[in-house]
Amino acid sequence: MGLELVLGADTGGTAVKYAVCDVDGAVVAPGETATNAHDPRETLSRLAAAARAALPDGGRLAAVGVACAGIVGPRDGHLGRSPNLPGWQNRDLAADVRAVFGELPAAFVNDVNAAVYGEWRLGAGRGFRHLVMIALGTGVGGGVICNGRLLTGARDAAGEIGHMVLDPAGPLCNCGNRGCLEAYAGAAGLGRRAAELAAAPGVAGPAFRAAVDEGTGRAELADLHALAAAGDATARELFAWAGRALGQAVANCVNVLDPDAVIIGGGVARAGSFILGPCAETARRLIMAEASRAVPLLPAALGTLAAARGAAALAVDRGGDSP
Amino acid sequence: MGLELVLGADTGGTAVKYAVCDVDGAVVAPGETATNAHDPRETLSRLAAAARAALPDGGRLAAVGVACAGIVGPRDGHLGRSPNLPGWQNRDLAADVRAVFGELPAAFVNDVNAAVYGEWRLGAGRGFRHLVMIALGTGVGGGVICNGRLLTGARDAAGEIGHMVLDPAGPLCNCGNRGCLEAYAGAAGLGRRAAELAAAPGVAGPAFRAAVDEGTGRAELADLHALAAAGDATARELFAWAGRALGQAVANCVNVLDPDAVIIGGGVARAGSFILGPCAETARRLIMAEASRAVPLLPAALGTLAAARGAAALAVDRGGDSP
Repeated sequence: MGLELVLGADTGGTAVKYAVCDVDGAVVAPGETATNAHDPRETLSRLAAAARAALPDGGRLAAVGVACAGIVGPRDGHLGRSPNLPGWQNRDLAADVRAVFGELPAAFVNDVNAAVYGEWRLGAGRGFRHLVMIALGTGVGGGVICNGRLLTGARDAAGEIGHMVLDPAGPLCNCGNRGCLEAYAGAAGLGRRAAELAAAPGVAGPAFRAAVDEGTGRAELADLHALAAAGDATARELFAWAGRALGQAVANCVNVLDPDAVIIGGGVARAGSFILGPCAETARRLIMAEASRAVPLLPAALGTLAAARGAAALAVDRGGDSP
Repeated sequence: MGLELVLGADTGGTAVKYAVCDVDGAVVAPGETATNAHDPRETLSRLAAAARAALPDGGRLAAVGVACAGIVGPRDGHLGRSPNLPGWQNRDLAADVRAVFGELPAAFVNDVNAAVYGEWRLGAGRGFRHLVMIALGTGVGGGVICNGRLLTGARDAAGEIGHMVLDPAGPLCNCGNRGCLEAYAGAAGLGRRAAELAAAPGVAGPAFRAAVDEGTGRAELADLHALAAAGDATARELFAWAGRALGQAVANCVNVLDPDAVIIGGGVARAGSFILGPCAETARRLIMAEASRAVPLLPAALGTLAAARGAAALAVDRGGDSP
């Protein structure tokens, strides 16, 4: 018997990021392929071909982990409402995986929970017993490790830290409610706030106003970050505004869960200290237990492969919410 | 060998509520004795006498569980800063228990964590795998069961749901921050709000104003509840205000933890539907996952002995954060 490899796949609406890993989680062959949002079997067949191409002579595929956005049943792969994956939702994905890969251990997991699992087993959270992760993408996701296990909750819906309400009169969120963390610290929320600041008379300077497209009201995060780095006061206040909200969310999580560390990931976190400085300051002020105020805020370490690698690790560890 | 009994003690600043229980958690002899806030050994000696008096011929004390307000080390009983128990803090309570009771299994636990453990093993939360409890007393405490274990966290500080910040510009909390759940739904916070409403020109009617002492600004919760029951609009709005904040906190917990149920306990919860109605309505609106919106909100079942019985159950189950 030769080398055993594991496939982890992070299925987005347009692309699947995947990682063929060894059983210890090291990446042997990373890759990306288009998602067929209407046909999981066709997509899985391409993934199977990619995984088999990475196998050495006599090697075999030992397990498969599949991560998707939405509520995912850890054993049957049942994916709840998932607007970007219409052909994948409300379907027995476990049967699809069996049809394509044969009988082998398979894990199904929400994409952000997969990322926190990856960071816990292989990345910034290694060795910790209790962990919170907040992923600042277009939206904001999260995940929780409690007592050395991924917390998926009673209905596989745990980890929705992005929709923690921080101010019932706060900015409108994509979910329809007001004041969710996502409305402050997600790229979409930050962008809306940037447009407001650019449009407000006498607030932003010409450089900031130029970074926001007048027609669409959109701004590139990288441009706003560059402005903050160059000393633009409005750009700095924008990230500080998001950072304070993030700090409140971090403190709320720490007060409830008292984790060993909080991992902050996602593209918005690239704004670094402009967002994490005000975040840490606010969190320290709002965390009750003195010993918990110094909880480490760690940058995510696995980058865009975190969810694929986490799904693979979860498949090796077997089962939805445990090693 | 005769009957084995277990002592659980819930140590407050002025009184210890205790329960001598059988190993299945049934109460054999409940009681209350004064706390000597300066001398844990003297207090424990009185508890030992009470427990021994409850033992039948040939029976023996099999374990002791001690709950205190504050951060409690589950194994050594180290109690952090605890202003109401000056003689108990920063001390090896495990050594005190050994000195008084001899060598036997002992558990030490935060009082609200003890109550959630009690409700989980013996009360409203029996049989659930994931549980959140919020206890609305003078202050507001909380506790979490995750994956069938009490979550004490990395620094024994988990469960501080009362200091979840719901609005950074909200009412001042006893902790010094603004907008904590406790500032809305704790008896002290509710009382302050009642005084504000009574003092505001043209808001409250004469019955409501009469319920708030003009000199001290204090009001009895039972009086405010009676006013709400009699249809007083200000009293109803007062409890609804607390209930909406509680609902936001419940939703935040459900979004992060997705528990099987949320238990609401404590004296303020006696306002019943006046607080729990608006709470449930707000929570339903703010919970993201459709399936989680119907999460049961359950009244606590064990009353004022919850923490004592929980501490006893924890001592039987052995160890700080597990059965």
